[in-house]
Amino acid sequence: VLEIAFRPDRASDVPMARQLADHLETLVRSGRLVGGSKLPASREAALALGVSRKTIVAAYDQLAARGLTASHVGQGTFVLLDDAPPRPVLRATAARTPREFAWSGLLAREPAPTPAAIALRSESHDRVPYDFRGGRVEASALPLTDLRWAVARPFRSRTRLRELAAHYDPAGWPPLRREIARMLVRRGLSCDPGEIAVVNGLQHAIDLTARVLVEPGDAVVVEQPGYFGAALAFAARGADVLGVDVDAEGLRTDRLARVLRLRRVKLVYVTPATQSPTGAVMSPARREALLALADEHQVPIFEDDYDNELRYAGPVQPALKATDPAGQIVHAGTFSKVLFPGLRVGYVVAPRPLRRRVLAARVASDFGSGVVEQAALAGLLATRGLDRHLQRMRRLYAGRLAAMLAALRREMPAGTRWTEPSSGHLVWLTLPAGIDPDRLHQAAHARGVAYTRGEIWFTDGRGAEHLALAFAAVDEATISKGVAWLGRAMREAASAARADGLRRPAARAVAAGRAGRRKSDGAQRAR
Amino acid sequence: VLEIAFRPDRASDVPMARQLADHLETLVRSGRLVGGSKLPASREAALALGVSRKTIVAAYDQLAARGLTASHVGQGTFVLLDDAPPRPVLRATAARTPREFAWSGLLAREPAPTPAAIALRSESHDRVPYDFRGGRVEASALPLTDLRWAVARPFRSRTRLRELAAHYDPAGWPPLRREIARMLVRRGLSCDPGEIAVVNGLQHAIDLTARVLVEPGDAVVVEQPGYFGAALAFAARGADVLGVDVDAEGLRTDRLARVLRLRRVKLVYVTPATQSPTGAVMSPARREALLALADEHQVPIFEDDYDNELRYAGPVQPALKATDPAGQIVHAGTFSKVLFPGLRVGYVVAPRPLRRRVLAARVASDFGSGVVEQAALAGLLATRGLDRHLQRMRRLYAGRLAAMLAALRREMPAGTRWTEPSSGHLVWLTLPAGIDPDRLHQAAHARGVAYTRGEIWFTDGRGAEHLALAFAAVDEATISKGVAWLGRAMREAASAARADGLRRPAARAVAAGRAGRRKSDGAQRAR
Repeated sequence: VLEIAFRPDRASDVPMARQLADHLETLVRSGRLVGGSKLPASREAALALGVSRKTIVAAYDQLAARGLTASHVGQGTFVLLDDAPPRPVLRATAARTPREFAWSGLLAREPAPTPAAIALRSESHDRVPYDFRGGRVEASALPLTDLRWAVARPFRSRTRLRELAAHYDPAGWPPLRREIARMLVRRGLSCDPGEIAVVNGLQHAIDLTARVLVEPGDAVVVEQPGYFGAALAFAARGADVLGVDVDAEGLRTDRLARVLRLRRVKLVYVTPATQSPTGAVMSPARREALLALADEHQVPIFEDDYDNELRYAGPVQPALKATDPAGQIVHAGTFSKVLFPGLRVGYVVAPRPLRRRVLAARVASDFGSGVVEQAALAGLLATRGLDRHLQRMRRLYAGRLAAMLAALRREMPAGTRWTEPSSGHLVWLTLPAGIDPDRLHQAAHARGVAYTRGEIWFTDGRGAEHLALAFAAVDEATISKGVAWLGRAMREAASAARADGLRRPAARAVAAGRAGRRKSDGAQRAR
Repeated sequence: VLEIAFRPDRASDVPMARQLADHLETLVRSGRLVGGSKLPASREAALALGVSRKTIVAAYDQLAARGLTASHVGQGTFVLLDDAPPRPVLRATAARTPREFAWSGLLAREPAPTPAAIALRSESHDRVPYDFRGGRVEASALPLTDLRWAVARPFRSRTRLRELAAHYDPAGWPPLRREIARMLVRRGLSCDPGEIAVVNGLQHAIDLTARVLVEPGDAVVVEQPGYFGAALAFAARGADVLGVDVDAEGLRTDRLARVLRLRRVKLVYVTPATQSPTGAVMSPARREALLALADEHQVPIFEDDYDNELRYAGPVQPALKATDPAGQIVHAGTFSKVLFPGLRVGYVVAPRPLRRRVLAARVASDFGSGVVEQAALAGLLATRGLDRHLQRMRRLYAGRLAAMLAALRREMPAGTRWTEPSSGHLVWLTLPAGIDPDRLHQAAHARGVAYTRGEIWFTDGRGAEHLALAFAAVDEATISKGVAWLGRAMREAASAARADGLRRPAARAVAAGRAGRRKSDGAQRAR
């Protein structure tokens, strides 16, 4: 019985008898339980494994039904030889020394982990009462009925299922591409469904573009602060990722101009409609300057249009790509943000010369996106189900944004600054001087408040004085309470820092544990 | 009206009025139709665009409802300024020279296209009556009701949808990973759900492994003939892809031994359960030899278990990974083959040291697989819906395989050889001498017969004398007829070649257009 080493999973919805039968089958199939072995008597097994005797008997019955065992009255249950002949290979290798294979020397070089990557990796996913971490949506507001209808639709008739089963186009499910083309009209983009490639969300759009354009050592410009996933994908290709600062009008094109004069840049990545994470809308003057610079230096632009549909005030922003006569802009969007993150469907509108290569990279990587999710989305779009959902979400999220801004005005200590975005799902906050970010993070966590730390949006270790508060998945009352607790945590962290300062002024910077990083920040900022 | 340049899509299920309204909206949003512009009168527009006046009126009404236009009695319909202010950027850039952006100089180096890649690219997808090309499934045998139930299940209650919407784990949907772990029991694999990573099908498993292990110039061994997608993914990483021949017992380990003595190899890719495309089952002796070589040279193995469930005779083959005490084998499987190709769900069982890196590569590339397809599959597996489907498919495909083998025995000219697999979806055929493959391909196409040419499965230009016949998606009567037509095409190609030979023996090779390639084949074979 000991050899059986069965660990029942009592949380599972699989009956215990099947769990045990499955486990015994593995042992037989892999040759660890060879033909002719006698299984322990049911009473004995039940005692040893801590399950009922009925379970053991049922498991043995299942094994017999699978043709793996036979019972002889008065003798017991035996593993049959026939179906699982003890193969020589299995015995031979079982005798081999099981020293662990040394993978480490074989792995491809990984980009050195940036402070952002380290911060990202150490982000916890624990449940907390006041959760302002990003990437989540309000699940209770999802259109349950519309979604159920849309996912089931292709399975309602043989004809529809036949189309689905015959689909192989790496560019995506044609009806979905038609709907996306139609949807992009609102963004001033007039494109043919043939220009659209469906991908697995925005991260995938960035990764495929990087795969096609970027070689190790190539320079790529990203926003600072900016979407961490972009930096991650470019760094994974070995790119030299250059951050260019943003302000209330979006990317600082004066700084970009300087970078472009100094270095040949392969790609400029921007989020013009809703800068991630500051929410800044790129101003017309900056758009013009960006396009002029891209033209002057013949640099392509990647337009990440991730949150374009979550706009609470002001007119819909036209896409940068709406003004792209030369075909220099890769435009990409996603449905994960407006529905739910596990729905991995996004799209790329790529200029013609790039499209073939993007599709070739796509085929080599995973052939294409899942057609079930694509067909469901096509149905949702065609029946305006997504529009209806968006209208509801805009109202809901606008209310939450207002609640968050009101709470911030009420609860934040003097000197705290924050953005007042008109779109997106984040408020970007800058701590006043004298608050240690580590201490604040701990104090907030102790009060059940979680947020994303600023470093994640920087490529160079800056950003500790920032944090992002995502409001989309938190109701208004919880926002108010959570922000109040955050305010208390901030005041506590500030007074603790002051106390530290009074007690041992010289050791202060060291105690806060950030002196080294601050210094190197300064150096990088000066670069 | 000419400026509106509207192309109605009459095949679309979107009402014409909405199509026109959408088109006009793009023009407004992108600033091409500026505020204050007067839209053409409905009668005039109807005439010019060839649609009814009612359609024009309806389109204009929709534009007004979208807040983009206003009508003044007796004056007409005007584009409003408010919602779409003519932004300076749009006008400025509209004046820019629209010379096409020069992408070509910016693209990352692409691996030189192999003969296989060229053959793959030129494969047509035209519909033909006798279609033996691979990658398709019998759609009419898919479990419509089970699938409909499984996809809709997560959308049947708010609670379930909330779980789905909260999912973010790049390793995959936990219930699916539990089901996969349970399923792998049949293959002798006892693994914890935590060891499994869900990916977008087998191609993705190969690509992610390549991304983590292979650097430009690294040697990777693949089977010859072998799955073209593997060679594609390794080549995309810049690998030096080395082919090792297979025979009726699978990979020739004697040849592998020679390669491993000469070169440091990063990975050996194999399909032990059903060699792709020959269907060979790797013999116990070869398995043992492969594991011993991998141990001796400390080379990891990638086990592609793509068709493991489509076995028509003999016992289920244990996975190679079932005998992996050192943790040296990456095992991967897929559901696309047993359900339909557009279902992009597969899995990787990776040794612990590799798993972290595979998941990191996953996050940088696309975060994770779509949860809708994953949840549907989990439901199908939990209720044994996939097992029931597989039992039906095995019966169905076994019948088709038998029909194909019978037809081949009846119809093939002397000297033709073919495999008689006990699993999979292909028969691998070797042409007799004296049949020009190009001529045969044309002759077969003229008779409505399509198949995949042999070159696709070779990395070095060999294989022209082979072809693959996929039987899974063709009914038995069509198989019989199609193979009969193929036989006629072969005899015709053979007699044409004989006639050519009689008429102009010296020019024969050149006329066949393969002389150059044949020569270089020889050179490569000798390497």
